[in-house]
This record gives sequence, C-alpha cells and structure tokens, in this order.
Amino acid sequence: MSSHEFYMQLALQNARAMKGQTDPNPLVGAVIVNDHRIVGIGAHLKAGEPHAEIHALRMAGEKAKDSTVYVTLEPCSHYGRTGPCALALVEAKVKKVVIATLDPNPIVSGRGVQILKDAGIEVIVGVCEEEAKKMNEVFNKFIVEKIPFVTMKSAITLDGKIATSASDSKWITSEQSRYDVHQLRSENQAILVGVNTVLKDNPELTARIPNGRNPIRIIMDSTLKIPLDAKVVTDQQADTWIFTSQCFDPEKKRLLEEQGVKVFVTNGANKVNPIDVVRTLGEKSISSLFIEGGGEINASFIEHKLVDKVVLYIAPKLVGGRTAPSFFAGNGIPKMADAVELSNIEITSIGNDFKLVGYPKYTKSMKSK
Amino acid sequence: MSSHEFYMQLALQNARAMKGQTDPNPLVGAVIVNDHRIVGIGAHLKAGEPHAEIHALRMAGEKAKDSTVYVTLEPCSHYGRTGPCALALVEAKVKKVVIATLDPNPIVSGRGVQILKDAGIEVIVGVCEEEAKKMNEVFNKFIVEKIPFVTMKSAITLDGKIATSASDSKWITSEQSRYDVHQLRSENQAILVGVNTVLKDNPELTARIPNGRNPIRIIMDSTLKIPLDAKVVTDQQADTWIFTSQCFDPEKKRLLEEQGVKVFVTNGANKVNPIDVVRTLGEKSISSLFIEGGGEINASFIEHKLVDKVVLYIAPKLVGGRTAPSFFAGNGIPKMADAVELSNIEITSIGNDFKLVGYPKYTKSMKSK
Repeated sequence: MSSHEFYMQLALQNARAMKGQTDPNPLVGAVIVNDHRIVGIGAHLKAGEPHAEIHALRMAGEKAKDSTVYVTLEPCSHYGRTGPCALALVEAKVKKVVIATLDPNPIVSGRGVQILKDAGIEVIVGVCEEEAKKMNEVFNKFIVEKIPFVTMKSAITLDGKIATSASDSKWITSEQSRYDVHQLRSENQAILVGVNTVLKDNPELTARIPNGRNPIRIIMDSTLKIPLDAKVVTDQQADTWIFTSQCFDPEKKRLLEEQGVKVFVTNGANKVNPIDVVRTLGEKSISSLFIEGGGEINASFIEHKLVDKVVLYIAPKLVGGRTAPSFFAGNGIPKMADAVELSNIEITSIGNDFKLVGYPKYTKSMKSK
Repeated sequence: MSSHEFYMQLALQNARAMKGQTDPNPLVGAVIVNDHRIVGIGAHLKAGEPHAEIHALRMAGEKAKDSTVYVTLEPCSHYGRTGPCALALVEAKVKKVVIATLDPNPIVSGRGVQILKDAGIEVIVGVCEEEAKKMNEVFNKFIVEKIPFVTMKSAITLDGKIATSASDSKWITSEQSRYDVHQLRSENQAILVGVNTVLKDNPELTARIPNGRNPIRIIMDSTLKIPLDAKVVTDQQADTWIFTSQCFDPEKKRLLEEQGVKVFVTNGANKVNPIDVVRTLGEKSISSLFIEGGGEINASFIEHKLVDKVVLYIAPKLVGGRTAPSFFAGNGIPKMADAVELSNIEITSIGNDFKLVGYPKYTKSMKSK
C-alpha cells in the first residue's frame, strides 16, 4: 500500500463510520498530513453540519499550511452552510490535495479541482476510487438519475429456486441470512414486493433488528386485489404505498385510503410498469429501493435495466423440479450471449449459506429504459 | 499445526503426487521420523509394486527401529506381493504408528491396527482424516459399494439455468471452466449423458487436454433413438456403451453393434433406471462415473441418491425465463426441509466463473436406492 492509499483508507474508514447519519448527503472523510504526521482528521457527520474537510482543517489549525489533504470526495465548489470547501483549502494554504473520486453530479464535477489548481495547489484524483464510489453508490445514482438505487435480493437454493415444485419456501436460508436481510431492509428507504407475495406470505416487510428503521412498503398491484386485512395495510408499522394500473378497483382504492394506505394510479393499462414506480419514488425523494419480489417482479425490474445491485443468499441445497420457480422468471433473455453479467462480485459465508453481491451490466440488445 | 499434522501433510502430498498411476489401488503415502528427523519417505507408486510403508521402511533401514511412522491409510493385514505391511512395521520394531484413516473396507478395517497393537506398538488414528478420505473418495466408495463414485457436473448461470428459454446454451461459462471439465473427464473412467444431449449437441465427450485419457461414453437411450451418424457412434475415439430399456428397437441395436457400440438392455419397461446403469458399470469395474446430463438425467440420478459429488461451474450472469431449463429438473423435492444439502463445499474462482464442489447429504424421506 502506498502512503497515499494508507491515508485515504483512514479517510474512507471515518467516512463509512457515519453510515446512516448523513442522509441525504454522501459519506465523506478527510485526513490532513504535514511532514509525515497526521495533523487533522474529519468526516461529514450530519446534513447541515460542516463538511469533512472543514472539520479536518479546524483540527489542523496552523499546521494545515503546506500540508497534503486526503479527501474521499471532490471538495465542493458551491456556497452552502460552510462556504465552498475548495476555497477553504485554498485559504488554508495547503500544498497538495489527494481526492478519491470526483463529484458524481456532472453539473459540478471537476469544479472543485479547478478552484484548487487555479490556486496553484497540486491535485491527484483517483486514489481508492472504486471503494469511494461504492461507499456512496446510492447517493451517486440518485443525484444523477433522480430515481432510486435498486437492490434486488433473493434467497435461493443452489439450483436457483425460490420455492419447491409444491410452493414450499420455508426456509431456504439459515437464520443468520434472514437476519442480514432485516439489516438491508433497515438500510433502504423503501421495500417493494408484488401483490402475489402479499397474498401468499402476508409479510410485514419491516426491519426486525435492534434500532431497525422500517422502510416504506411498496406493493405493485395492478387491480388492487390486496386483502384489506393484509398486515401491510393494517399494522401501522410503516407507510404502505400501492402502485396500481388503469384497471384498478375504485371502491377498493377508497377503502385502502381510508386505512391510511397511499394508492398511486399509474398509466399502465392493466399492468404496472416498474419505470413509473421508480420515477414516482424519485419524485418523493426515495433514493434507495429494496426489492424482495418473486420471479416475475424480479424479471420485470431486470428487463427494464432498473436493478443496480443484486444480493443473493444462496443455500447449499438442491430442490429441483421442472416447475419449481426460479428467482428470475419472466420471458427471460433468449440469447446466452446477451445474459446480464454481474460485475465486482463478492461472495462471503453467512451462517450455512453464501451471500453473493454483484452489479448487473446491461447489454444494448435488452429492452431499454 | 502439530508435528503429527506436519508429517502427515508430507505423507499426503507424496500420496497425491501419484494420482492416476496407482489404479485400481488407492493413493497412500508414508513418512518415518526418528529423533525429530525424517529417516524415510514413501508412497504407493503403482499397483503390483510395494506399498508406501515398505518403500519408507527400506529408505529408513536400521533407523526404522524405535521410529514413528506416519501413514495416510491403515497398514494392510493381508498377504499380497509384499506381505502385510502391519507385520513389516512390527518386524522393523517401530515405536509408534500414526494413521490418517482406517481401511474403508469394513471386512478388513481395524485389522492392521490390531496387529500393531498386539505387538505393543502405540497407534494413533485420525490425524488429517478428512483429507485422507477425500484423496481416495472414489476408491473408498467402490471398494465398499461396488458401484462407481458418481460426479455430477453442470455449467449454470447464477440463476441456475443450463440454457435460455430459446434453448441457447453456448457458452454459459468461460474457456477456463470448459478446459477444467476436460480435466475432470480425463480423471473419470466413464462419462454419461442422455440421448437428448446427443441429439441436441452431438458431443464427442472426450478429454481434449494434453495426455487426456478418454472415458468410456455411456448414453442412456430408452428406445435407441440415437442417430447412427452421431459422433459417439462413429468417431472411434473411445468406447461407447448404450443403456436401453425393454422397448428398444432390435434392428437399431444390431446396426449399433455393427459399429462397435455395446448395447445393454436393462429391465426398465420403457425407461432406463439409473440404478441398473451403475450396477452394470460396477460389475465392469468402472469405479468413477462423470455425469454431464441435462436436467432430467441429473434429477434421475439425484432422486435415486446416486450422486456422490456435485461440481458446478457458475457463470456470474442471469438469463431468467420461466421456461428456461434448470440443471436439476424432474419432479423435484416437494418440501424445502427435505432439500438435498451439500456438505464440505469449496468455492474457487476459475476464469470469470466460480467452481463449486460439494457432497450431497440425502434425507431419508427421499426415494431410496
């Protein structure tokens, strides 16, 4: 590891420690080094409070002069509560700024670097870039595309099944994996299933862990056939939003709304288009969506290229059956060469299972957004 | 690592180095230690030649007296070409014998240990036992059950598919994975597919690697609908054996036999029972069988509890499709709790794919042999 990487790793660690407390701002960390000694550390702690560089500069005081500053995200160039951080670095007379990743927002990206360079400060960009990007993957997508970062989760057998041929699905994975899912629910602002999952399992879709934050529950239901006594309708544990199509039942809509459920009528004639769902969620400032759908919901989001991240809990078991459902159903992709590849795959052990995380790379020949 | 494990690991390494040259005998290695120094090493090199302990004793000479002998398999108690090894150890006046695993054959298991103990030699059993068993997994099964050790291989997408909904399967995995399959073919005495694979792909089923040994090609074909111009019938690259049922076509049988193909008529009325196949292979001294079947062949062998080892090449991609075939079809297992669990799973990276190896544990409630 180079010394640049060493200091940037410390900045990343401090940034990551604030996970969950900076929304809607990204995670950012900073480290200031002068004459081989760390003279300041900082992180963005909370929206509305100083940025990471400002905390670190304050700690460094006079020692910021001629120092090297490591920061996980390009210093901002806009006038917010604490003025542009790039200007603060210039005023502190730092010598060098090492940046992990540029601002993801194309409108301002590179402006902070320009301010620094114009002041004669040496700038290095791209140290630990992948890690820094991954840390703010939700923020980076939302700030640019204005639709939520979508994580698709499925618990499957080693032969890709989410239930047996007799529709038995309890339990595929171990307790530890199921606990981990509650952690992911807590980290997402909204959770989505199809109405068939509600009819089959009557789930609560809450984050049942200590200090778990319940996501907003999103149900895709083209005709509003959700039972009025479904837990997500009655239990008041979190908001429930139902997306329906033009062929919805108006009386049912009224009854649901009476129970405090929000009903969104989309343009789909008899099906809810997932693009309408994510656009509406984006307008409502929902930046992260967790999908726990069955095979058809999953297929619909993958085929529309809306899934950003796939999390699979893979149980080391086989159930077989030519009619047993797989986690990605729909019509499927006809050509193997057009399959959706996952990149940056990480596999870890969890309980008796494997947890696989990967990022879909979509090919041109697929249905486009 | 204890010193016992250290020396046993050396014995295992020497044993494994002889892979492929000891058939039909197992791999065995031995190390002799006297006063903290290695005074002899040995391995079984070839059937008909001395056992591992004998080679090591010869190397040690006088220094075998009062030594500790590490051997990966219980010393034999029978009179073969070199006499019982247990007796040779007694005669060499060794002090202690450390054994990784007992003889798998229940008829003689423990007899070698008894001879040693009766002579006052201290005996320790079970050092690096799992590794020693795994090294001879094929031998251990065949010597006891007289049917081949069955390895089921499949190349799948992350969603468990062996082809798309449009039957496209070229290619699922990377070149490196496909090369590795040829290695496995070469390590098995026979390879098995269903006739539908022959009709669809017209495969050669040979081991196309340097010094590859072609396995005997086994085709399950209940009516003998295999084309007479199929490569496995005409190419003479390896023997081809076809297993058929009572409803076979006699004229086709004659034509196939004219081409040098062996046809085995089993008792199945209109389907070939895989149990009949493995029994016949066992009678023909085939101790290892490699299955590269489609979903139905795989299901038939799993449902009859005949698969000992599963090797999956998993490509990090998704194809989806509710009708796309999975690698384990058949009727499947109705209850999730009865799923076939895989134990001792190992996952490694190969090319762009993952290679997963595991050992099925069958539950009582499944169809029994």
